[in-house]
Amino acid sequence: MTGLHAHQVVIVGGGFGGLQAALALRHAEVSVTLVDQRNFHLFQPLLYQVATGALSPANIASPLRSLVKRQANTRVLLGKAVGLDAPRKILRLADGELPYDTLIVAAGARHHYFGHPEWEAHAPGLKTIEDATSMRRRIFAAFEAAEREEDDAKRAALLTFVVVGAGPTGVELAGALAENARHTLPREFRRIDTATARILLVEAGPRVLAGFAEEHSVNAAAALAGLGVTVRISTAVVKIDDHSVVLRHGTEEELIATGTVLWGAGVQGAPIGKAVAEATAAALDRAGRIVVGVDCAIPTHPEIFVIGDLAHVGGIDAPPLPGVAPVAMQQGTYVAKLTLARLAQRTLPPFRYRDPGSMATIGRRLAVAQVGRWKLSGTLAWLAWLFVHLMALVRFENRLLVLMQWGWHYLTWNRNARLITGRDEKPTDS
Amino acid sequence: MTGLHAHQVVIVGGGFGGLQAALALRHAEVSVTLVDQRNFHLFQPLLYQVATGALSPANIASPLRSLVKRQANTRVLLGKAVGLDAPRKILRLADGELPYDTLIVAAGARHHYFGHPEWEAHAPGLKTIEDATSMRRRIFAAFEAAEREEDDAKRAALLTFVVVGAGPTGVELAGALAENARHTLPREFRRIDTATARILLVEAGPRVLAGFAEEHSVNAAAALAGLGVTVRISTAVVKIDDHSVVLRHGTEEELIATGTVLWGAGVQGAPIGKAVAEATAAALDRAGRIVVGVDCAIPTHPEIFVIGDLAHVGGIDAPPLPGVAPVAMQQGTYVAKLTLARLAQRTLPPFRYRDPGSMATIGRRLAVAQVGRWKLSGTLAWLAWLFVHLMALVRFENRLLVLMQWGWHYLTWNRNARLITGRDEKPTDS
Repeated sequence: MTGLHAHQVVIVGGGFGGLQAALALRHAEVSVTLVDQRNFHLFQPLLYQVATGALSPANIASPLRSLVKRQANTRVLLGKAVGLDAPRKILRLADGELPYDTLIVAAGARHHYFGHPEWEAHAPGLKTIEDATSMRRRIFAAFEAAEREEDDAKRAALLTFVVVGAGPTGVELAGALAENARHTLPREFRRIDTATARILLVEAGPRVLAGFAEEHSVNAAAALAGLGVTVRISTAVVKIDDHSVVLRHGTEEELIATGTVLWGAGVQGAPIGKAVAEATAAALDRAGRIVVGVDCAIPTHPEIFVIGDLAHVGGIDAPPLPGVAPVAMQQGTYVAKLTLARLAQRTLPPFRYRDPGSMATIGRRLAVAQVGRWKLSGTLAWLAWLFVHLMALVRFENRLLVLMQWGWHYLTWNRNARLITGRDEKPTDS
Repeated sequence: MTGLHAHQVVIVGGGFGGLQAALALRHAEVSVTLVDQRNFHLFQPLLYQVATGALSPANIASPLRSLVKRQANTRVLLGKAVGLDAPRKILRLADGELPYDTLIVAAGARHHYFGHPEWEAHAPGLKTIEDATSMRRRIFAAFEAAEREEDDAKRAALLTFVVVGAGPTGVELAGALAENARHTLPREFRRIDTATARILLVEAGPRVLAGFAEEHSVNAAAALAGLGVTVRISTAVVKIDDHSVVLRHGTEEELIATGTVLWGAGVQGAPIGKAVAEATAAALDRAGRIVVGVDCAIPTHPEIFVIGDLAHVGGIDAPPLPGVAPVAMQQGTYVAKLTLARLAQRTLPPFRYRDPGSMATIGRRLAVAQVGRWKLSGTLAWLAWLFVHLMALVRFENRLLVLMQWGWHYLTWNRNARLITGRDEKPTDS
């Protein structure tokens, strides 16, 4: 056990960055407190599979306590960070205080509706387990309501799904929706033909998967079209309500009647970011990220690090790093090492992101991947996607469970986890 | 396909009884409509494993549409039955009407708080997925709150769990709670010793597992004590609020400070039972079950059958059958056959329950089972319990997933599905 007077490292957030920082400190002579509002680490890249009924929430979540139980210098605390007393080095929780010597803020991001917070009620995003089960409920309830709907126009609206944003999340979501409609559900309904469902993927930018090479965008768009997804690029969403969205392409506006709008577009730093910035006079960028130096620390408070989706590293003019797991994990390792280096009166060179490559999947046996100058698409990229995501899951048990469900789904097209559960403000039959 | 003018069989409820009735009609020249509020069949006997973090909801649920998709004469309708127009043979839904020639009411039961409906908010029961995830949230949130609690008395209360009712559900729940506290959680907490958690199993009757042979009650009580569960027989609950329960044993009353009360006691017929009874002048017994004849039909309306937990078969003076899956399933098969027999101008002998035996498990490698005059307890009974429950799960995929998680849990004691999710009226940290 580490002594009572050990250097106190407090980590806010048990996502990829925060968890990695805690794990990197496991042999260190410091005392680590990992604070999270939730009792589990969540593998967000597979949330879309929960939302579309392929996996269960617990398959992509692992209890935080269980992950650090063998790490005697680390404790987990279920709590909500709400503010900071920077001069006294105290983190304020909703129901208490926590003193720190080093603070690592890794609170992640939430959705951002581009100045339209009222859209959230109509177009759920995909960041939490509850987001995913809520999305799942809406998707499958829409098919149920369509089966019962007598009015042709209303039925067509119920069978219209609009996915906003064609980054990896939007592309994967649209692909999985199309597979549900074309392959999983058709034989189960008696009155509607689920294969006629209309799936629109709307992207404000000029191409899908903008973070990838241009040829990948072309491949992905073709694959989506092959699955029956209608892709609308250079198209902005200007209005969303309970029954429709309005799209704008150039000067042309189009109203789409739909019962289900899914949000895969903007993100914004978690609310605690604002409180941290105010308490430390740090700058926030336009996406609500805290601007930190090349060492991931707040310039005026070198003892406070910000990592992951909440961090804008290298100053306001540096291009922000992508909001992906490898960035957060590498930053987590970096700030853990830097903390120990400083305790040993040493320092480290600036943080540098080594891009391990990126990948996205678009339905079965098709994915795009790029590692440096290497580009891969098709079945091989899909197998690589499967392997990388499986191995990135934190627990061996989860890997087995996910692998089994993927295998099952591949053979039968069935998606067993499509439960309509929980409450919602929207009625099931409308 | 069955013609439009085929005999219309409407089944209310996709539980064990209703689903079995639908499956038994799969080759019949009738048109079947299965109405349920939920889109899945739920394997209730394993709900306690969801509540204690061992399994995920989808592992014990199967989409109803998927179960009958190859059955062309059957359609599934997501809807809530609210009443009956018996003379016109119309089932009223919350948002529509459904004409029937034969109606099979298999709507099951809800909890019953013995005239204290206000207890439900403090002591959740275990009938639905939401019940189970709510119970799971309370159990694991209590350990989290205890870890943060500074006050000794409050911490002791948070580590006190009271399970009401020592039937199979209560016994299995108390056993799983004890295993969590003694084996799964201890190494994960830093300030509390979860093994000191107090688990009380309270039973108003004179013994646990009252439906079993006396020697099984003795074995089960001993096994529970060995797991660290305090069993209180002949003890009634007289008060429940947010912070305590009051127990009465003889004339003695005792106040137990606790943050978590779990309800495994009385059940009562589903609300639709009352509407059906009113519309048909059928009698309800004290537990809200509809009294039907030896053919499971309402005497004044032979075209309306009631089966499963909602039925009291053979008249008000006949002893009610136990509220278990085999009863409901055999009744489902029986009324399906009787419906077809009647269409062929034949009839059938009265329904007779063939008891396949009963079993309950109390922690690892211990269960009690009895089949006719055969009694079994210990490891062999436990293996039998595992096998029977695994085989009773509806889908092969679920069997594999559950088997894998049980194996994993057996080897590691870990329970991966202990997520604190969803909202609750109770704060997480109190």
